[in-house]
Amino acid sequence: MSTNTTGRVASGATDRARRVQGPVRGGLDLGGTKIEAIAVDRRNRVLGSARRPTPTSGGPADVAAELARAVSEACAEAGIEPHALSGVGVGSPGSVDPQTGAVANARNLPGWQDSFPLAETLSSELGTSVRVGNDVQVATDAEFKLGAGKPYRSILGVFWGTGVGGGLILDRRPWLGRGAAGEIGHTVVKSGGRRCPCGRRGCLEAYAGRGAMEARARKLAKKGKHTDLFHLMEERGRTRMTSSIWGHALELGDKLATELIDEAIEALGTGIASAVNLLDIEAVVIGGGLGVRFGAPMVKRIAEAMTPHLFNDWRPPAVHVAALGDLGGALGAALLVPRGARKTVDAGSTRRDD
Amino acid sequence: MSTNTTGRVASGATDRARRVQGPVRGGLDLGGTKIEAIAVDRRNRVLGSARRPTPTSGGPADVAAELARAVSEACAEAGIEPHALSGVGVGSPGSVDPQTGAVANARNLPGWQDSFPLAETLSSELGTSVRVGNDVQVATDAEFKLGAGKPYRSILGVFWGTGVGGGLILDRRPWLGRGAAGEIGHTVVKSGGRRCPCGRRGCLEAYAGRGAMEARARKLAKKGKHTDLFHLMEERGRTRMTSSIWGHALELGDKLATELIDEAIEALGTGIASAVNLLDIEAVVIGGGLGVRFGAPMVKRIAEAMTPHLFNDWRPPAVHVAALGDLGGALGAALLVPRGARKTVDAGSTRRDD
Repeated sequence: MSTNTTGRVASGATDRARRVQGPVRGGLDLGGTKIEAIAVDRRNRVLGSARRPTPTSGGPADVAAELARAVSEACAEAGIEPHALSGVGVGSPGSVDPQTGAVANARNLPGWQDSFPLAETLSSELGTSVRVGNDVQVATDAEFKLGAGKPYRSILGVFWGTGVGGGLILDRRPWLGRGAAGEIGHTVVKSGGRRCPCGRRGCLEAYAGRGAMEARARKLAKKGKHTDLFHLMEERGRTRMTSSIWGHALELGDKLATELIDEAIEALGTGIASAVNLLDIEAVVIGGGLGVRFGAPMVKRIAEAMTPHLFNDWRPPAVHVAALGDLGGALGAALLVPRGARKTVDAGSTRRDD
Repeated sequence: MSTNTTGRVASGATDRARRVQGPVRGGLDLGGTKIEAIAVDRRNRVLGSARRPTPTSGGPADVAAELARAVSEACAEAGIEPHALSGVGVGSPGSVDPQTGAVANARNLPGWQDSFPLAETLSSELGTSVRVGNDVQVATDAEFKLGAGKPYRSILGVFWGTGVGGGLILDRRPWLGRGAAGEIGHTVVKSGGRRCPCGRRGCLEAYAGRGAMEARARKLAKKGKHTDLFHLMEERGRTRMTSSIWGHALELGDKLATELIDEAIEALGTGIASAVNLLDIEAVVIGGGLGVRFGAPMVKRIAEAMTPHLFNDWRPPAVHVAALGDLGGALGAALLVPRGARKTVDAGSTRRDD
């Protein structure tokens, strides 16, 4: 953070800080392509937000620096200094240690295999306490507490994007298992089936993950199958087959895109139904880049694809689109900071009194 | 129960009752082919047991009468009158209402579609309070509290028999969902795959349930595939392909039996791995007729079949054979009776003071 930026933040902050009532919390959603930062008040109203691209080179320290910048920008908009936040929550991919806030093995982030002390690094950078949780789980928590899952006691969150992630709330509490629960993307929907980006066969993600779908489209196009998907990518100057490119191809009636999305819906219906048969949860909330982009009509199709596989088909779960859209991850991250958190800053270090 | 039998029970009871310390609970496991009854002491030691065939005709009232007879026999062995039991628990198939003890839709029992007041009927027959739970869930509870699941906080019980049932303990508490959780047998392991006895396609049970395996063997034998399975059934005078017939066929190296069991193991490995990916539980306990009959070597094969599908393959769950064997269901049923239950019998009716 440059001195200039700090200056700008500080001057804006003076006016706005008077209007902000109660403690302000920060939320960070660390994705493979973008970082989303927000500052929220006691009632989870967004006072400021910022979005920055995730670094594609360097290492964890560079990603942490970019996260800190995003928080500062969101704070600037909210009119508060980062060190005045009552805490910052981070939703992170990879293996998260919620006790220490260390993150390891974040496959989609640059050079991030070994454990990196993310909470500690960000905390000393921002001057406030930092908690780290699993990205998909915090997004599920947000939908449960603030979004489409509010009316229920038990939900399954399914995040349909580059991969397919899942989060569970059982009897009002997040279910993490031994720390790695929720891998619904690696439910086997077809024994001996298509190769998944994870290296295994027949996983839900092998059919429904945007990454796997792009690879499949590329393979079939090479074999001579016609599609406008790659043309649309070039036209829009994209290097990845984003949700909006898939959406556009479907609108144009692209046959290959339609087939691949049909397969994805079928796989999602099958895998989610199996999870429902095992857990008999009340509701399924579908988010993620593709889930949010396609919205209610596609979620209705997923619910229909579940039906033939539901053992108790007379009482299917409710199936909803994620209500918080793109902000769910950052809102859920902010929920990691205890509401009662109060700041006590002394000599540059931070201490949180819960 | 005839007067003669009562006489015998009563005379035996006088001696033994003096040795029984504390309250005695009854447990009933109501299966499609047999009823298992036990009487246990405070420390869940079996004081008496009895086994009777499940009626194949009549209706719920006939089944209830047979259940009462089995309890009386187990009590006779334990040296206690049924009405002196502090309570009786029943593990039942079908849709169980744990509040009222009513059971509906028990597909494998004669004429049992509509709701039948099982707890009420048995209670007035036996002169003690009766609680009813789901058969698979009580067997899972028993393994968790007394058997192979004791060292863990979260387990998945898989009961591999005529069908494939499942029960969950999450963070030391049974997880029932909206009352119908645990249907791991209807996890789809192969989209568009083999027809399941439930009518759906590709379920785990379609490959691993003894009922489905027998139907498959019959179909393939009709098509001219050689097998000794049916010969073994005739030889032993059986009308169903029991676990021991499958065991014997495998020992003889029967090719079709080997193929079908291989498919079952593969399906079990796949479906259980998907459940583990979703829940990240600590341990899997495998019971049921086939699970108990085949024991550790086969459970080891199931664990191996899980491995290629486990997302966190560096930390697989423990996989155990059910430690309580055939008695697990009845022991779990007895656990439905609160330990603190005390009997107060007045004028033939019963009241339980918890």
